[in-house]
Amino acid sequence: MQYDKTTLPLVVTIPIAAEPPSLHDNTADLDRLRTAVTKSLPQALAGRRLFIPFQAMAVVAHGFRLAGFTGHALLNVFPDHLDLIDYFGQEPEHIAAVALDLGTTHLEATLVDVSCGDILAHAHCPNRQMEYGADILSRIHFATDKAQGPDGLGRMQRAAVDSINTLVLALAGEAGIEPESIRAMSISGNTTMAHLLLGLSPYHICREPYTPLINAPDPFAGSEIDLNIHRLAPVWVLPSIGSYFGGDLISGILASGLDRLEETCMLIDVGTNAEVVLGNRDWLIACAGAAGPALEGGVAKMGMRAGPGAIEHVHLDRENWQLQVQTIDDLPAVGICGSGLIDLVAELYLAKIVDLRGKFRRDTTSGPRQRRDFVSKYVLKTEEGLAFIVTPSEISGHGKPVILTQVDLDAMMRSKAAMYAILTTLVNQVGVDFSELERIFVAGAFGKHIDPAQAITLGMLPDLPLSVYRSVGNSSLQGAELILLSEEARLRSRDIGRKITYIELNVNQEFMIRFSGSRFIPHTDPHLFPSVPVFRDEMPEGQA
Amino acid sequence: MQYDKTTLPLVVTIPIAAEPPSLHDNTADLDRLRTAVTKSLPQALAGRRLFIPFQAMAVVAHGFRLAGFTGHALLNVFPDHLDLIDYFGQEPEHIAAVALDLGTTHLEATLVDVSCGDILAHAHCPNRQMEYGADILSRIHFATDKAQGPDGLGRMQRAAVDSINTLVLALAGEAGIEPESIRAMSISGNTTMAHLLLGLSPYHICREPYTPLINAPDPFAGSEIDLNIHRLAPVWVLPSIGSYFGGDLISGILASGLDRLEETCMLIDVGTNAEVVLGNRDWLIACAGAAGPALEGGVAKMGMRAGPGAIEHVHLDRENWQLQVQTIDDLPAVGICGSGLIDLVAELYLAKIVDLRGKFRRDTTSGPRQRRDFVSKYVLKTEEGLAFIVTPSEISGHGKPVILTQVDLDAMMRSKAAMYAILTTLVNQVGVDFSELERIFVAGAFGKHIDPAQAITLGMLPDLPLSVYRSVGNSSLQGAELILLSEEARLRSRDIGRKITYIELNVNQEFMIRFSGSRFIPHTDPHLFPSVPVFRDEMPEGQA
Repeated sequence: MQYDKTTLPLVVTIPIAAEPPSLHDNTADLDRLRTAVTKSLPQALAGRRLFIPFQAMAVVAHGFRLAGFTGHALLNVFPDHLDLIDYFGQEPEHIAAVALDLGTTHLEATLVDVSCGDILAHAHCPNRQMEYGADILSRIHFATDKAQGPDGLGRMQRAAVDSINTLVLALAGEAGIEPESIRAMSISGNTTMAHLLLGLSPYHICREPYTPLINAPDPFAGSEIDLNIHRLAPVWVLPSIGSYFGGDLISGILASGLDRLEETCMLIDVGTNAEVVLGNRDWLIACAGAAGPALEGGVAKMGMRAGPGAIEHVHLDRENWQLQVQTIDDLPAVGICGSGLIDLVAELYLAKIVDLRGKFRRDTTSGPRQRRDFVSKYVLKTEEGLAFIVTPSEISGHGKPVILTQVDLDAMMRSKAAMYAILTTLVNQVGVDFSELERIFVAGAFGKHIDPAQAITLGMLPDLPLSVYRSVGNSSLQGAELILLSEEARLRSRDIGRKITYIELNVNQEFMIRFSGSRFIPHTDPHLFPSVPVFRDEMPEGQA
Repeated sequence: MQYDKTTLPLVVTIPIAAEPPSLHDNTADLDRLRTAVTKSLPQALAGRRLFIPFQAMAVVAHGFRLAGFTGHALLNVFPDHLDLIDYFGQEPEHIAAVALDLGTTHLEATLVDVSCGDILAHAHCPNRQMEYGADILSRIHFATDKAQGPDGLGRMQRAAVDSINTLVLALAGEAGIEPESIRAMSISGNTTMAHLLLGLSPYHICREPYTPLINAPDPFAGSEIDLNIHRLAPVWVLPSIGSYFGGDLISGILASGLDRLEETCMLIDVGTNAEVVLGNRDWLIACAGAAGPALEGGVAKMGMRAGPGAIEHVHLDRENWQLQVQTIDDLPAVGICGSGLIDLVAELYLAKIVDLRGKFRRDTTSGPRQRRDFVSKYVLKTEEGLAFIVTPSEISGHGKPVILTQVDLDAMMRSKAAMYAILTTLVNQVGVDFSELERIFVAGAFGKHIDPAQAITLGMLPDLPLSVYRSVGNSSLQGAELILLSEEARLRSRDIGRKITYIELNVNQEFMIRFSGSRFIPHTDPHLFPSVPVFRDEMPEGQA
């Protein structure tokens, strides 16, 4: 294969033909092989220093003799050196590697044949660290507070490794290969996930001045953290920018190509945090904030990840007052995911069942009869205030109703306000107007399922033509795949870290002001959302 | 300290002063440190890429915080990169490292403070591999023949490591430091010793075409082979040239400076093999052969290493016919080492008790009475032929006589013949005459104790002015010390490997012819040894 930087994987095989030893040339086997490899390197690798790691020596020497000195050398590729790891008589069918999105709640991975880019398998599983805490802060607490028990950090690390090894077994099984034939892994996750995986204390991540222990770790061998892959497989952890801006977002930048575009664009990734990057090939600016929980199913009682049985879309037919609910895999509803929640609240706002403050209204006296019946049936008074039945227990997937309470709605309003405040704070930092944005990439499960029109109705995303928005799927995973396949991506991931300006919202006054202004539907300044109807007459007295 | 290549140790500490993190600069700790180290590098290290190995991250990050971001970084130094390994608030008193001569029978080591070059401790011990075989061939056999039991190679490796760890404990104890504070190790040994230590099969070393698995291994971490030193201490094994030309002789070249001299010189190292290098700063040629055993105490019944109680010098007063014997440490004699053996045979030749064929003569009828009494008393008839009593049992150190038998004398004659044949074959290869040699360095215990005049008498070393000969001591150990202290030495050791021409004597016809011609005292051609008396009239009839 001809390589250039954009097609140079983290692991390559190189065909080798060496002369057997003789009395005229009894060079030592591995020195002979070293010379042969150096001579056989493709242009893209020429001149890099070649090392033979201690643990590879005996295996490589054995393989080289067994193959009669002609075969294929397997090399780990680093920016300025190469590690000679293995030797085969026959070229292996696949050079398998794992790309991993190491999420706080969920892991998703693909098995990639890096020799051709084919996806051999796909798998996901929960993060076993959930046992020690649902969110990042509770995990940091568990890992660093001795009162939680001894070796919290070690237990957290092992939980992450166990989760990954579970995925590795699933991937290897699906592809019909042995785990130890997996030759590399790239890992994309937030800064805390990276620290816990590496066994590094995340103590200072959540404490002013919010300092990680490391942003850009050097690659290490899989066996260093007991990953169930080849013991010398290089593990490439995507670099972070700061405590609240992780490698998952660097992945998103790689996958969207934001750092190479001429026109200014934006990338929004909503996970546990909302992370946003603005920029183009010349400059990048980023910030992150806690906008996510309600949108990722972490807060709402009936909230859930976008998985089977999650309500992902809601439509309210205001002619016939029929609620249409669409679930993932068309299964009976068991909860509601972020996109469903956005749809629901937007539809309820347009139906005047939620007012511009984000409060339920139970007006059973006005409007047509069908509306009055609908409100009577679906909007309930409970001990904790009003609530909305999305799916009654009779037709739900778990025998309980799927309900949105006022408490959950309030959380959702805070999340949507935070999101818009983050976006406006960021564009304001560089004096760009939303209308100047060529494109807004929306990443993650959130981006995959969200209807931008509904998010605009809520005032969560700016009021731009829908064609500006583009869903980019799990860009954390896509970026990890690029890391496996392209040296350019590996170098870019480091360059992005050096190039990006990060705005710390934890101490940003402007953000706090903009957050307050965003806690209405669509906004206290409705001129920002010309396409959204404003029902000012619905506002209770005393509000302006 | 100001470094240049000649003073750049394998491990250095660098003073660091970094700003503490703040909201204005919350760069991750290790990225902050990486930047600070890069800025603080002395000229000799500037521009080298800095890595933080996986196992160092948590320790370094902890030390950096604990020290308040100001202190001393410890770096492992490689030709084109640096590994950041540790961080101290206070500069450590010593940066200790071990230089090791890994001999087939014996290990000798020094503990060196690489920050200043001071020797902190010195120790030696037997090689525990002796249990599995006295010489190299039997060790190779044990390691590679499954009939010897399972995992012979592994057992041999552990025996070597156990021996080294014994020395490490002794060195650390003498210097009053902890073994884990030892930060580097350099190891100089023959090719088989290096293979066994690295766990690499030596099978092909002793089989045509005599091919090692590796000559120039990359440095590795101490923990890879369970050395009881700091787990990330770099272990630097001196490169070999071939199966019979090991890192110990590269050490000798480094220590003697042969590869930097203008005038052509020679280096002779007699260990298990006799290894010889000829050359100057422009070229180097080498060969090795089995000349050693009788000279290193491996063959003669009473032979022993140059240790306490070994007879190292013998003088026969031919006026009064008194035998004067000098032992190491002036202890009662328990055996005879190589230099004693050479003295003894030379003196017996000059006394006409050994003839020019190297056979004992028991002439009790001619010469003065004192001579006749001496021969009667010291030259014995045994079942195996004549023998010479060097020290009677009454005054020996172990209650047994120290005796030289004809069998041992024959072995000695083969060794001395091999040695001279090796030397002449080598000079002949490049058309140099012995008289053109500026200096002959004689290395090892052999070189330290040998009297060149006696060796010339035997026809073992060329008949040159005694001032040409210079003893250089344990140059294997000295070379290992240089490796710890000087990057120039590390680079030279690799260059020597590339620059040297190695003559394989195992298949050299000229050597076999020269060997036959050298099996007389001093030689079949006495014109080669004008300073040595030839007692041709003593020759039995039928010999010419």
